Amino acid sequence: MKDVVMTAEHTLEKLGLTAAELTGGSLEVRSPIDGRVLARVHETPVADMDAVFARATAAFKAWRTVPAPRRGELIRLLGEELRAAKEDLGALVSWEAGKITSEGLGEVQEMIDICDFALGLSRQLYGLTIASERPGHRMMETWHPAGPVGVISAFNFPVAVWSWNAALALVCGDPVIWKPSEKTPLTAMACQKIFEKAVARFGDAPEGLLQLLIGGADLGKALVASEAVPIISATGSTRMGRAVAPIVAQRFGKCILELGGNNAMIVGPSADLEMAVRAIVFSAVGTAGQRCTSLRRLIVHNSIRADLVARLKKAYAGLPIGDPLAEGTLVGPLVDEASGQAMEAALKAAEAEGGTVFGGKRVTDGVPEGGVYMQPAIVEMPGQTEIVKTETFAPILYVMGYDGFDEALEMQNDVPQGLSSCVFTLNMREAEQFLSPAGSDCGIANVNIGPSGAEIGGAFGGEKETGGGRESGSDAWKGYMRRQTNTVNYSAELPLAQGVKFDI
Amino acid sequence: MKDVVMTAEHTLEKLGLTAAELTGGSLEVRSPIDGRVLARVHETPVADMDAVFARATAAFKAWRTVPAPRRGELIRLLGEELRAAKEDLGALVSWEAGKITSEGLGEVQEMIDICDFALGLSRQLYGLTIASERPGHRMMETWHPAGPVGVISAFNFPVAVWSWNAALALVCGDPVIWKPSEKTPLTAMACQKIFEKAVARFGDAPEGLLQLLIGGADLGKALVASEAVPIISATGSTRMGRAVAPIVAQRFGKCILELGGNNAMIVGPSADLEMAVRAIVFSAVGTAGQRCTSLRRLIVHNSIRADLVARLKKAYAGLPIGDPLAEGTLVGPLVDEASGQAMEAALKAAEAEGGTVFGGKRVTDGVPEGGVYMQPAIVEMPGQTEIVKTETFAPILYVMGYDGFDEALEMQNDVPQGLSSCVFTLNMREAEQFLSPAGSDCGIANVNIGPSGAEIGGAFGGEKETGGGRESGSDAWKGYMRRQTNTVNYSAELPLAQGVKFDI
Amino acid sequence: MKDVVMTAEHTLEKLGLTAAELTGGSLEVRSPIDGRVLARVHETPVADMDAVFARATAAFKAWRTVPAPRRGELIRLLGEELRAAKEDLGALVSWEAGKITSEGLGEVQEMIDICDFALGLSRQLYGLTIASERPGHRMMETWHPAGPVGVISAFNFPVAVWSWNAALALVCGDPVIWKPSEKTPLTAMACQKIFEKAVARFGDAPEGLLQLLIGGADLGKALVASEAVPIISATGSTRMGRAVAPIVAQRFGKCILELGGNNAMIVGPSADLEMAVRAIVFSAVGTAGQRCTSLRRLIVHNSIRADLVARLKKAYAGLPIGDPLAEGTLVGPLVDEASGQAMEAALKAAEAEGGTVFGGKRVTDGVPEGGVYMQPAIVEMPGQTEIVKTETFAPILYVMGYDGFDEALEMQNDVPQGLSSCVFTLNMREAEQFLSPAGSDCGIANVNIGPSGAEIGGAFGGEKETGGGRESGSDAWKGYMRRQTNTVNYSAELPLAQGVKFDI
Amino acid sequence: MKDVVMTAEHTLEKLGLTAAELTGGSLEVRSPIDGRVLARVHETPVADMDAVFARATAAFKAWRTVPAPRRGELIRLLGEELRAAKEDLGALVSWEAGKITSEGLGEVQEMIDICDFALGLSRQLYGLTIASERPGHRMMETWHPAGPVGVISAFNFPVAVWSWNAALALVCGDPVIWKPSEKTPLTAMACQKIFEKAVARFGDAPEGLLQLLIGGADLGKALVASEAVPIISATGSTRMGRAVAPIVAQRFGKCILELGGNNAMIVGPSADLEMAVRAIVFSAVGTAGQRCTSLRRLIVHNSIRADLVARLKKAYAGLPIGDPLAEGTLVGPLVDEASGQAMEAALKAAEAEGGTVFGGKRVTDGVPEGGVYMQPAIVEMPGQTEIVKTETFAPILYVMGYDGFDEALEMQNDVPQGLSSCVFTLNMREAEQFLSPAGSDCGIANVNIGPSGAEIGGAFGGEKETGGGRESGSDAWKGYMRRQTNTVNYSAELPLAQGVKFDI
Repeated sequence: MKDVVMTAEHTLEKLGLTAAELTGGSLEVRSPIDGRVLARVHETPVADMDAVFARATAAFKAWRTVPAPRRGELIRLLGEELRAAKEDLGALVSWEAGKITSEGLGEVQEMIDICDFALGLSRQLYGLTIASERPGHRMMETWHPAGPVGVISAFNFPVAVWSWNAALALVCGDPVIWKPSEKTPLTAMACQKIFEKAVARFGDAPEGLLQLLIGGADLGKALVASEAVPIISATGSTRMGRAVAPIVAQRFGKCILELGGNNAMIVGPSADLEMAVRAIVFSAVGTAGQRCTSLRRLIVHNSIRADLVARLKKAYAGLPIGDPLAEGTLVGPLVDEASGQAMEAALKAAEAEGGTVFGGKRVTDGVPEGGVYMQPAIVEMPGQTEIVKTETFAPILYVMGYDGFDEALEMQNDVPQGLSSCVFTLNMREAEQFLSPAGSDCGIANVNIGPSGAEIGGAFGGEKETGGGRESGSDAWKGYMRRQTNTVNYSAELPLAQGVKFDI
Repeated sequence: MKDVVMTAEHTLEKLGLTAAELTGGSLEVRSPIDGRVLARVHETPVADMDAVFARATAAFKAWRTVPAPRRGELIRLLGEELRAAKEDLGALVSWEAGKITSEGLGEVQEMIDICDFALGLSRQLYGLTIASERPGHRMMETWHPAGPVGVISAFNFPVAVWSWNAALALVCGDPVIWKPSEKTPLTAMACQKIFEKAVARFGDAPEGLLQLLIGGADLGKALVASEAVPIISATGSTRMGRAVAPIVAQRFGKCILELGGNNAMIVGPSADLEMAVRAIVFSAVGTAGQRCTSLRRLIVHNSIRADLVARLKKAYAGLPIGDPLAEGTLVGPLVDEASGQAMEAALKAAEAEGGTVFGGKRVTDGVPEGGVYMQPAIVEMPGQTEIVKTETFAPILYVMGYDGFDEALEMQNDVPQGLSSCVFTLNMREAEQFLSPAGSDCGIANVNIGPSGAEIGGAFGGEKETGGGRESGSDAWKGYMRRQTNTVNYSAELPLAQGVKFDI
Repeated sequence: MKDVVMTAEHTLEKLGLTAAELTGGSLEVRSPIDGRVLARVHETPVADMDAVFARATAAFKAWRTVPAPRRGELIRLLGEELRAAKEDLGALVSWEAGKITSEGLGEVQEMIDICDFALGLSRQLYGLTIASERPGHRMMETWHPAGPVGVISAFNFPVAVWSWNAALALVCGDPVIWKPSEKTPLTAMACQKIFEKAVARFGDAPEGLLQLLIGGADLGKALVASEAVPIISATGSTRMGRAVAPIVAQRFGKCILELGGNNAMIVGPSADLEMAVRAIVFSAVGTAGQRCTSLRRLIVHNSIRADLVARLKKAYAGLPIGDPLAEGTLVGPLVDEASGQAMEAALKAAEAEGGTVFGGKRVTDGVPEGGVYMQPAIVEMPGQTEIVKTETFAPILYVMGYDGFDEALEMQNDVPQGLSSCVFTLNMREAEQFLSPAGSDCGIANVNIGPSGAEIGGAFGGEKETGGGRESGSDAWKGYMRRQTNTVNYSAELPLAQGVKFDI
Repeated sequence: MKDVVMTAEHTLEKLGLTAAELTGGSLEVRSPIDGRVLARVHETPVADMDAVFARATAAFKAWRTVPAPRRGELIRLLGEELRAAKEDLGALVSWEAGKITSEGLGEVQEMIDICDFALGLSRQLYGLTIASERPGHRMMETWHPAGPVGVISAFNFPVAVWSWNAALALVCGDPVIWKPSEKTPLTAMACQKIFEKAVARFGDAPEGLLQLLIGGADLGKALVASEAVPIISATGSTRMGRAVAPIVAQRFGKCILELGGNNAMIVGPSADLEMAVRAIVFSAVGTAGQRCTSLRRLIVHNSIRADLVARLKKAYAGLPIGDPLAEGTLVGPLVDEASGQAMEAALKAAEAEGGTVFGGKRVTDGVPEGGVYMQPAIVEMPGQTEIVKTETFAPILYVMGYDGFDEALEMQNDVPQGLSSCVFTLNMREAEQFLSPAGSDCGIANVNIGPSGAEIGGAFGGEKETGGGRESGSDAWKGYMRRQTNTVNYSAELPLAQGVKFDI
């Protein structure tokens, strides 16, 4: 394992992080791979927050009048720098978050994609011109920069979620203040280095477009409470969202929340089972079940249930578990010991509620010492009990049977979360019904692909306890701007709307 | 005055309200015109709320699958019924809210306009089809009905604001639960009668599409807190919004807030003063200064300040104040005695902060006894002091001078509210700067028209303490729906986004 | 039959057509029902065309500055008048075009629908505000009225197609000059009466918003050639379009062409055959096969071919053929004797090319004398021969078999026309493939509904020899406006785009 | 001058053009700078055209199913290659088209900008999902690739116009067949080399995505007439467009025409004259008056006319004319002798029609021998005579006076062309009126910037004899795709639109 740490050090160096930045700090960063300390980084003092807000406000005043296509050029350069740093940053994601190589690289690719998308947006940011009811009047609505954006991100997508927010926010004219997870400060620091390279090439950006808050919950609290930060984009648990949202609401700020998911797949009798198996395994065990979009609930037509479960068990039995940086590994470690215990507790609860567990044991052979490696678990449940309705951030897949499609839909919707969902079926009626107003109640609903792995072109986010926010594609950029409705009277008359008369 | 009450009774009867509904209840409804009791209506028991929510939920399940153009037909019929009832409902608005005749009718016209607009929307509700990065895949986003909508409205637009919400919500597939102001239950009850006529002609609408909550704050609280009501659209004071928003946020509901405004007009040296005077008087004294978009702050270039103030004083001196239903009246009563006292207190504070008050006295001659009639006030201020930054719901116009346009813009933005704003100028540079990213920070910004009297085609609402909601035109309808992002794989392959590989 | 004529006269009278208008003219109007003369109407002299154009131009100058929502009010009133005249106008469509009652009424309903839609549009007509690359600059695009629109319509939709064009054109600010088919001047004259009622209620519309050209091809030619008419919307045969398009193109006018269709249905092995049969019969024999969207080609999977054909023959055998105004009739007359002969010629050709014809005979029993009544024909073909690729405006359905779905798609696309198409399948892969970039090449492509009977909310029109025009819903309204791109510089600087330097 | 030619050779080499390609051909390429032969290139034989079309068709079949974001990647790479080749390609534009250095580089920058824009589009290409009137039905419209696009470009923007078309067409899924001007084949050949570099890096593009037609009008004719090329985008003279458009129309192809402009500026009494002078000079003499958007008509308020003309003459007198590659040059050569003679003829005609000419003489001192260098001309006209209404592709500026703004607007619109236009004014009423439905009738209308130098974010093109096409930004991409309207029935019912009944 020493090698890995050494390589991690080398990568950190290549990404521009200095020894001074990586040592002597109060925040210990451990790799989920083997639990070793990768660095001890310096925390942002809470006392500095006022200065942070002041810098962001000043940066906003300058940045908002920079033409959007010029702001887009900064993001284009950021995309170039990310392309150049892809391998290193991807590897660092593996070290710090425990993802397998392909997923670490995929996450960086997602950053690159959003930069391309935001670059295009920078010549759009379309508002509307609107027909006015009054002669000699013109109406339009314009989207203007809104102010500094606070981004709170989670360990499991330590860099992509930031980039979704930052690429859009910066193109929209807003500076960013980023509070990454305490578990993943290094990837955040690396992103800032990469961003600074882009800024240097760009030339005349105001200082303070991106500020990093390294540390714990007190920083997040200060960020969330600040009137200087009109927009808070927070990714994490429902519990966190439930704390954050009212504080922001009370000060009339805007929240973009990406909270818990408890994502299901319905497998219909006509499904292509071979595809379904691959989709299920990727969705349920990818990132060791620690995606907000991980598949957690499998709702299978009873006619194919036994067959499908058998196939899944076979696939699960052969999954390569271990060092995520090793070639061929598909299941890496959980992020920490607490996660491992949470998984064990959930499996216990599931058994208590009538479930039969397959897998779910600790793995100690052939895996790096010091990491928390678990067998992904398949749990056959008699119904959708309490534990099934609870999000456990671990590779647990609950399996339930159904007979009629309406029953399956009802089960799909009968959880408090509303992020992602999917159906496997070759029957167009089932597929369409799943996507209809009476179908899935989630923000994401797919057909014949799993619930995870969204493209950046669509809006990402979910309903109910997932928090209702939308990021990434479509018109999610509007969440980073303020809308203004304008009526311009170029006549010499003063007609009132709705035919009101008021002659003085 | 007896006549008026008699006519009110007659109008109530024509609008279908029965004696049983108007008498014997615990909620006394007084007319601002003369303070007489118009009716004693029955309050909705808090104990009934669960049944209300259950009816709304059942109605939602049925209504969401009714095709939107068919839902639009209901709103078309509502528009027809409103056209038929325009004079009566307009008059009732005058009696119950104290508006002058033209404004009462204008409010009903606004209801009609939004019905026409919503009818058109009912064949749109456009989502997007989106280019997918994967072969054999299709992406789209669809907007689905979201669930019951709680509408909390204020006394000053007792019917229009409901119609903005109801027309869109119903076309979008959502039932409505309406809690009108305690001061204006009669107009709400009349609206429900009108709505029921439309429903009867429509034929097969589910029961419970519109439910009325008559009574006080406890009903509002129950509404706001209910998980059965995913969307709360609340119009009222900032104080109210600050109480409502966190409650809704904590349960991950969505708020559409239309709160306080403190709206300014900048008058530049090139302004058409004759037009400006007319716009100022209408915006500042219309609805007796009780619009959320009423003009409250006048920021005048010092070169024309004296001239403009003199013209305004002359116009104010000649304003017909009195019975709002009498021909020619431009200024009716304040809604109640508390409002009169608040106005007096504000004027006193303004004087204490260095202001010079013109007008602002109680009017007792030639006005109906029992109402609170005030002279609209012009207050020349040495600067934008505390009281100027406070919204007082009364016809007070604070006047401040400026020298440079940037200074004027800064004053315009230097209040906590962010609803409406305008500039009077013939200089295109000033006009455009006012509308630019560095211009007005309000949700509405106009040129050469006052801050009030928006057309329904634009999105209505404001920033900062105004609450950030948008109603009426543009894509405000999206606030009443849930967005779903779909990816459909019709190939026999299973490629992952971002090029991720995961081969089991 | 006397009764019918009498009723026709009564209906014409109810629709406001006077004896003077209906008699003494040079254009004889015969009913397809029994060939009797319904009226002799007066033709527009070609010599009047200059005056027509002058009136349209003058009307345009006035109408273009009337606010669009006000223009929408005219269309709302038109919708009301159409609702009031629905039964009469529907009946007149039956008399003059030979449609069955339900289709005549459906056509009027379509007119009503488009009025509702256009009313909503009248507060939209959205252009864009666009991010500019230059500081102190604002970009937007606006849609402006374009000028008089020439509408050339065909006998088979004598009123709906006009309304699609007129409702949009008038809301967009453009007057309309309408040249209906020589075969159906009466319904056009009735529409003008209805329109005039709306205009009268509207109040202050300029004269000449709608002008009718009654007569033959010379009027159409003058219309098409006129520089005063920037937009020509022409519905009819491909031959007509091929003549019109180059003339308009040479004078840089815009064409909206709705020409021939040769619409196919693919029926896959998983199709719901019971539904397919009903869809096929309606699409193939509705309007006696005289819709541009009529189903003409049936491409059936060989495994179900025999079964499907047997079911169709059974259904065809029981079709009630006769007086379209009689209760229960599903198949009315062809429009004239030439159409009957064209059908017979096509069937003969089909036989010569290897086809086996079922039905297709003249019907003389139980049908009104003087009309051309034909049995709808099913022709089983060995392949897609020449006659199959030719549009014959009659109820002929060619049936071909296929084995692989790609083969079926290729047959679907292998005709010169490109209007409408559909697939019946419960297999989502087939459904999606049909709608994919490599699927149907038509402007309309449906799943599990026939090719005809589009809703007005979508854009209507087709590719290839169909002419490429789009009418009705979506953003088809843009075809009636001109787009203007605006850049406004409100700074005191003069930066050039693309960083060009040019310092004098 | 020898140096220049040598450098040209070096640049051609750097751009990858080989001696074999540059010599021995039948098409002589001369530099406008000094008339020397830059190369003798090989013409595409007309006999090859069928193969060209076949390759394009094959490429289309493959390219249309490549996901659009992947197609966008090719354009991103093209943008990178253009960035790398910017100086060389810009210089070649100067040599081959005679543009000054800054304009040559600006043209390449425009290519880069459109690549960025198209890259963003590649994850959009948005169609709509649309509310259906029928239960259990779903409507949407999708944009699909349309087929090979023929691009005909002119000498004056030898590369940018191609890139506008190619970037959009390729992202939209369409191969491109490019026929550049006979005068500028070298820049086209260089572009193909650059494109091939991008293709090589891309990896798996089908062969034939970009094909070049080198030669004369017969190639253009074959291109325009081919059924294999559904879209023709042609830039050039009105005369050319008038020939092309009917041919394409007759075969139901689509034209995107960018033809003649005769662009005016209105200068109002409040205008910032210092800015106006700079804008006028750049717009009128930039690219030696050979832009389609060049300023040709100056409509000046009579109160400032003398002053403005005097300032212009002073500025014109000091213009550096000569070798466009020399530092400081603002006016380079006309493209050829014919252009020089056309300019002289126009000036003569202007004088005959009452004009007074300033400048307009041949320049022979201090300019490279062999080129056609002309003094830009200012011609004061008594009114808008025939020659003023004619586009002469040379630096002639006609000046006319006006008194009322309506008069100025009428003059602005009273020419057959309709490309670009602008007003200089600080008066917001004039500015807005100019942009209103009754204002400029051009496709482009600007305020306080000249008529030329559009940003790529807006749609580019014009009305009337300009041909009506739109390229570049906004939704111009739709011109390269086909629209398909889909209705999907996922119910087991078969309701008909408009409530039609047809029960068999």
